[in-house]
Amino acid sequence: MNQPTVFQQEAICALATPSGVGAIAVIRVSGQGAIDIVNTIFKGKDLTQAESHTVHFGTIRDGSTLVDDVLVTVFRTPRSFTREDAIEISCHGSDYIIRQIIKLLVKQGARVARPGEFTQRAFLNGQFDLVQAEAVADLIAADSEASHRTALNQLRGGFSKKLASLREELIHFASLVELELDFGEEDVEFAQRDDLRNLIQSLQKTIAPLIESFDYGNAIKDGVPVAIIGSPNVGKSTLLNALLNEEKAIVTSIAGTTRDVIEDTMVLNGLKFRFIDTAGIRETQDLVESMGIERSRKAMEKADIVLLLFDSPETFADIQVLAESLPVDKRVLWVQNKVDVSELRLMDDALPISAQSHLGLEELKDTLVAQVQKQAASDTVVTNLRHYEHLVKTQNALEDVLNGLDMGITGDFLAQDIRLALHHLGEITGTIVNDDLLANIFSKFCIGK
Amino acid sequence: MNQPTVFQQEAICALATPSGVGAIAVIRVSGQGAIDIVNTIFKGKDLTQAESHTVHFGTIRDGSTLVDDVLVTVFRTPRSFTREDAIEISCHGSDYIIRQIIKLLVKQGARVARPGEFTQRAFLNGQFDLVQAEAVADLIAADSEASHRTALNQLRGGFSKKLASLREELIHFASLVELELDFGEEDVEFAQRDDLRNLIQSLQKTIAPLIESFDYGNAIKDGVPVAIIGSPNVGKSTLLNALLNEEKAIVTSIAGTTRDVIEDTMVLNGLKFRFIDTAGIRETQDLVESMGIERSRKAMEKADIVLLLFDSPETFADIQVLAESLPVDKRVLWVQNKVDVSELRLMDDALPISAQSHLGLEELKDTLVAQVQKQAASDTVVTNLRHYEHLVKTQNALEDVLNGLDMGITGDFLAQDIRLALHHLGEITGTIVNDDLLANIFSKFCIGK
Repeated sequence: MNQPTVFQQEAICALATPSGVGAIAVIRVSGQGAIDIVNTIFKGKDLTQAESHTVHFGTIRDGSTLVDDVLVTVFRTPRSFTREDAIEISCHGSDYIIRQIIKLLVKQGARVARPGEFTQRAFLNGQFDLVQAEAVADLIAADSEASHRTALNQLRGGFSKKLASLREELIHFASLVELELDFGEEDVEFAQRDDLRNLIQSLQKTIAPLIESFDYGNAIKDGVPVAIIGSPNVGKSTLLNALLNEEKAIVTSIAGTTRDVIEDTMVLNGLKFRFIDTAGIRETQDLVESMGIERSRKAMEKADIVLLLFDSPETFADIQVLAESLPVDKRVLWVQNKVDVSELRLMDDALPISAQSHLGLEELKDTLVAQVQKQAASDTVVTNLRHYEHLVKTQNALEDVLNGLDMGITGDFLAQDIRLALHHLGEITGTIVNDDLLANIFSKFCIGK
Repeated sequence: MNQPTVFQQEAICALATPSGVGAIAVIRVSGQGAIDIVNTIFKGKDLTQAESHTVHFGTIRDGSTLVDDVLVTVFRTPRSFTREDAIEISCHGSDYIIRQIIKLLVKQGARVARPGEFTQRAFLNGQFDLVQAEAVADLIAADSEASHRTALNQLRGGFSKKLASLREELIHFASLVELELDFGEEDVEFAQRDDLRNLIQSLQKTIAPLIESFDYGNAIKDGVPVAIIGSPNVGKSTLLNALLNEEKAIVTSIAGTTRDVIEDTMVLNGLKFRFIDTAGIRETQDLVESMGIERSRKAMEKADIVLLLFDSPETFADIQVLAESLPVDKRVLWVQNKVDVSELRLMDDALPISAQSHLGLEELKDTLVAQVQKQAASDTVVTNLRHYEHLVKTQNALEDVLNGLDMGITGDFLAQDIRLALHHLGEITGTIVNDDLLANIFSKFCIGK
């Protein structure tokens, strides 16, 4: 994209690494005078003379008091993340030291950064567009292969390119219509109405799968909600543990990384699933009655996928009653457990497994993953509610253009709807921005980003 | 200190920043081939050609799959923390990305580092001695000005220098005695026995305050345990909250830093205090009886300082009974609360405060801090149990030398005790080491350090 002149704002600073115990921590400083400010508290090389992308060992001092031994890295405008002059201070990972260094930076004239302020500056200085800036936050939060791939694709401009080409076609369309307006008195039609209709419809066909991909995008970002439903003792917990343990084994084989264990959330074949807790269901003999339907129905309502688990003719009958109450469009997966004990197959479509003996688990995972991937109608996936809303508004504006064409309305009204569609597309990438929008987007970032 | 030749061990890698959500994370790689290994997965500049202390932007790739945009910093032997070839990879702060990059490094031949392994290598390659290496861990854990200053002083070699000069004097002494042994047959006395006695006594005088400083060292490292004792409603909680709130206000005025709140632990004037919870004491009318003494006695036993709080003649009488049961060497601080309400002073030595109106709190803090600093008999403070134990053993060996001199034992027996003293001093700084000791010390570090 085009590179605007870099505007250096006042210097800001913040911790860029997570707080907590670690060997090292990194404090970022960026903006007008960033290098001078750090130079006043750094003893070692004269940083004002340091070249970009060089690292220097020295000490941070508060007057005559030594605060820490550090490494500082100098980035000179425009070759930094924010494209401003910037410095990264790598110090020992102690909260006390971090606090002291930030205090010193503030004393020397830097301001503590607001959440997302570094990324906002990168955006304002043309490092990337808004979709890419938002992808930075998604990338950090990504905890599965699919969400990581999607965020990285967005960060690298995949989605932005698609939007840019859509905008270009719309602008072309608009220019034809607006040309007519210029010659309005002469009643000229530069754009054949049928050609226009075809163009709009082709745009809609490009936008529709993007809109549809949002469900999938949301799923890979937040996890696909799955409810495991079944009578008492059919093996719901055993199944969950079996799935969880296999994944745990993979994760913990890499020492030195930790994983926030959220109960019953797991990544299967690169996709995240959230297993909705149905453990609260009172376990009495009669499943349907004991559930009072309410609790299980709530779990099923929240679920994208309902996994119906049974292990005998009785529990199969129980679950059939329940299944009848499900909406027709709910995705359902029938699973027969304990097939290593009983060989009787109760339903052709049911997946045979044994959670206890770890039989059929791979097939079950593949089936769950396949259920989700069916939704991926486009290779570009929309994961952001803001993007989704603007796409829907774009689509509606295009619909209005089509209706306008059908009703034979004049060019100036057509042009108005086209401009609206262009506006919404532009707001996604930040070609059209306003300060409130920016403040709202970047305030959701963590500090230091 | 002397710089041995750098020995480059096999390449190791680990996350060096805390795990958790943050803008960036840093992965460290060090050892033989570290630069080549990273170069195979890095697309950007050819790192094998990069100069030391330079930073390069590029991507980490798993075959054709993009993993992340990163900055890599190249450190060439011996100009790195471990003095080996080393690389720091600064990636987006996502657990998923960190896991992927570490997996890739392992696939390319690096091994996941053991806790403290980077610091151990730095020690083995003469970057610093054992006391300094241990100070790295203390520095990271430091959460008050005093503990930070002590750890930093040790890291910078303050304690090591003192030990080195002690060792030198002992070696001088030993050489005189051993010279006698060489001329043993000729019955020569190179060393005047009185001079020897003076030298040993002067050494003991240097070591004694170091040993005594351990209590203070422990206190500033782990916090000084304080018990606030008093009848119900004399304002124990109000006092705690008043102290805590003042400190909190200071801490939270620096945005962007978080502080692990451990209940009733606070830093006053740069020193950490742990207020032992006495909230469990049943609150009835008669303090002495209701306490059953047991609970309060336990709190007082654990405390370095007992703060006796009262607000009326009755509660003063209560507390006096309790105070009589205290060991004579326990440090006690009498405090009269609510002096803004009642002007009657019940005890000359008691500090007058009002926790409610924040009167006298500064004086109270100063008094608490002064109580602790009285212990600081030396400017060099011993904070490490291992160091303390070796110092005590050194002192005992010196005592044996003195006894030997008194008994007029022969030079060879004297030399044996002197060598023992030298051995213990050497074990502190790692001049004398064994592998078990090293393994034990470094296994307590966090991974990535």
